[in-house]
Amino acid sequence: MTSAPGSTERTRVRRLPEKAVTDVAALHAVLDAGLVAHVSVVDGGMPFVLPVAYARRGDEVVFHGSTGSRLFRLLADGQPMCLTVTLLDGLVLARSAFESSMNYRSAMVLGTARRLRDDDELDALRVITEHLLPGRWAEARHPSRKERAATMALALDLTEASAKVSAGGPSDDPDDLLDPELMRLWAGRVPIVERFGDPIPDELCPAGTAVPDYVRSWRRG
Amino acid sequence: MTSAPGSTERTRVRRLPEKAVTDVAALHAVLDAGLVAHVSVVDGGMPFVLPVAYARRGDEVVFHGSTGSRLFRLLADGQPMCLTVTLLDGLVLARSAFESSMNYRSAMVLGTARRLRDDDELDALRVITEHLLPGRWAEARHPSRKERAATMALALDLTEASAKVSAGGPSDDPDDLLDPELMRLWAGRVPIVERFGDPIPDELCPAGTAVPDYVRSWRRG
Repeated sequence: MTSAPGSTERTRVRRLPEKAVTDVAALHAVLDAGLVAHVSVVDGGMPFVLPVAYARRGDEVVFHGSTGSRLFRLLADGQPMCLTVTLLDGLVLARSAFESSMNYRSAMVLGTARRLRDDDELDALRVITEHLLPGRWAEARHPSRKERAATMALALDLTEASAKVSAGGPSDDPDDLLDPELMRLWAGRVPIVERFGDPIPDELCPAGTAVPDYVRSWRRG
Repeated sequence: MTSAPGSTERTRVRRLPEKAVTDVAALHAVLDAGLVAHVSVVDGGMPFVLPVAYARRGDEVVFHGSTGSRLFRLLADGQPMCLTVTLLDGLVLARSAFESSMNYRSAMVLGTARRLRDDDELDALRVITEHLLPGRWAEARHPSRKERAATMALALDLTEASAKVSAGGPSDDPDDLLDPELMRLWAGRVPIVERFGDPIPDELCPAGTAVPDYVRSWRRG
């Protein structure tokens, strides 16, 4: 089960609580929209942050890394971790520098990871591939025994999470809105949109190899 | 001075070292290209990861947050921290799931933050605003005494950092390239591009207020 976002002491949104989202569907939507998460784990007192490919699988987030990675071994050992996904949606220009900001959707999950094994691990690898490259798992060569040995897949339950969404235009200081000089200044927002560019074939692709329909159908945003 | 990326034991790139960049200019370029960084600090044994607006200022990264934030107070106290910037440039489709990946540019900085004060703090706020909203500082209302009291600006030296860049097409397993069945499969990469959408004026903007030229000139990517 995914717990209600922000429902524990550690995940209660204290800064700008009006931006907190508290329903599970909204948390899932943020996680489903991202491609890269930032994961932190402590090594020698230092909280390293590394970007990882991930996917939501029901009520957990799954992600993978190298069995040779020091940080992934710490994660697999059950060290406390945090996973954050941030999607940047735009720049917000208020009349003041202070109220100028960004629009974003973000999710943060706390907990300890669980290393997945056997078919469960393979399923997680499938889910990650299909999240990033929908349609590809059916065609690409699946991991070999050797590749499986070099990879670990981890799961993090969505039992302790929070999410925030900041959208819309600026929230100016009321005094600024009464200042005729400042009100001559343009204010508003500039959306940031992510798009896929045209697929670029590998140089070893035989000429005329068609870009698959599933690739052509991919959209961002 | 910015130290050479990857030059300390903690920042040496062990995974996919061929993607490591070792010159200072490349590290600066990654930091200059991002808008949001992910910062981690430990609180109660948990390494929290939070997204922050930031900018490079010479040989340091500056970022700001609320003086009321528990995590920002820990950062200002000099707790060990990591700051990571990740730019996603595309999806890479290999013949195998294992070799499929993403193109990205990333930078990671380790250290302890230093709280900035007085004019130095104001300069950092200017640099952050100008990084995110170039041209805006000259027009927007600058922070008031009260706003300054609610904000802290921190600096993190670039003395211990690493950077990685992954670009180009797939690096397939050599055996896969000899497999006629797999070689019928399209392979390559799909770029991800970030763009600004059309500026959307705040509803309180008087009709006809022109979008400033500096906003019109903003570009991503």
